[in-house]
Amino acid sequence: MKGKFITIEGVEGVGKSTQIESLQQFLRQRNIDFDLSREPGGTFYAEKIRQVLLEINEENLDPRAELLLIFAARAQHLSERIIPALDSGQWVLCDRFTDATYAYQGGGRELGSHMVEQLETLVQGALRPDLTIILDLDPEIGLERARDRADLDRFEREELEFFKRVRGVYLQRAKEFPQRYLVIDAAGNIESVRDKLLSGFAAWIDANV
Amino acid sequence: MKGKFITIEGVEGVGKSTQIESLQQFLRQRNIDFDLSREPGGTFYAEKIRQVLLEINEENLDPRAELLLIFAARAQHLSERIIPALDSGQWVLCDRFTDATYAYQGGGRELGSHMVEQLETLVQGALRPDLTIILDLDPEIGLERARDRADLDRFEREELEFFKRVRGVYLQRAKEFPQRYLVIDAAGNIESVRDKLLSGFAAWIDANV
Repeated sequence: MKGKFITIEGVEGVGKSTQIESLQQFLRQRNIDFDLSREPGGTFYAEKIRQVLLEINEENLDPRAELLLIFAARAQHLSERIIPALDSGQWVLCDRFTDATYAYQGGGRELGSHMVEQLETLVQGALRPDLTIILDLDPEIGLERARDRADLDRFEREELEFFKRVRGVYLQRAKEFPQRYLVIDAAGNIESVRDKLLSGFAAWIDANV
Repeated sequence: MKGKFITIEGVEGVGKSTQIESLQQFLRQRNIDFDLSREPGGTFYAEKIRQVLLEINEENLDPRAELLLIFAARAQHLSERIIPALDSGQWVLCDRFTDATYAYQGGGRELGSHMVEQLETLVQGALRPDLTIILDLDPEIGLERARDRADLDRFEREELEFFKRVRGVYLQRAKEFPQRYLVIDAAGNIESVRDKLLSGFAAWIDANV
């Protein structure tokens, strides 16, 4: 039997790393074998592409070049890691996936959804995550948290309006395909967010596995 | 008035670098202002992508990931260098362009032409080279020359059959769109190839500029 493909999304500073820890503990307790990965990245070449994407330079990175780099990394990640894992029965827990592309490049960079859809079909065929968890937070709060960290990458340097568009796309996609999304209000403290996340996730597993 | 966009193609060892020197001299003699560039590459981020493409690793680089990386570099090269140059009236002389993608990824990697066409439209819109010069040579001879050099990159390590497919696509495209291609038999010595190249190029200029 094929493993389940779970992706986790959210804007900067939403507490994604912490809650991914909670999800891992939860899966271990249920004795579910999984592979934790991230995008862009997850394999040798895909991590090289991530470095190009995050590198800051005086040259502007064209938004379509950025979009194609992300799908190049995704094609590599899928063929070398995600698909083999799912085929072997392992679950895959992935820190960001194509919803982030709709949100950041389609929304944030204002490329729109059509080009993203075309590349999604070209690279993924019919493959979609079984479940996408969105940690939702007002980006004003998230950015304040994220900017306490030392170095800001090429994305973290964007303006608030960029992240408002990102959040808007995440929420709109969740509304459009409610059966595939679990939206968690991430405004509270770590424990209360974790409790909401894990009870929602447990309910999804009970209904879908 | 917009500059002309000239691309030069050919398999490994065909003598492309030498003949590009001849083309540059010729353009200088005619007082034509031009920018010499190459693909993949030509800008900061595009050259970073080139490094990823040529890097050798035990991990296999998925052919679709390779194709998307090439078009990512191309989107960057077009927006940051080629289009601004052409718009300013400069000519652009480019060592490889999208014909190489049809030949190497479509033919060599056997991805076919449909995916390349889709990405060509997405990245280039209606932009195509004004003239593509193909230096044509039996890849058996070309590879022998190329392999005398020290380090072979990820492409130069391919088998003869790969380069036979590459050559086949180049010649087929030239046959399909004869008005856009100048095919030069590159089997002779440097001087005779140069003479054929420059007389063909001069005739094209007289007819098209």
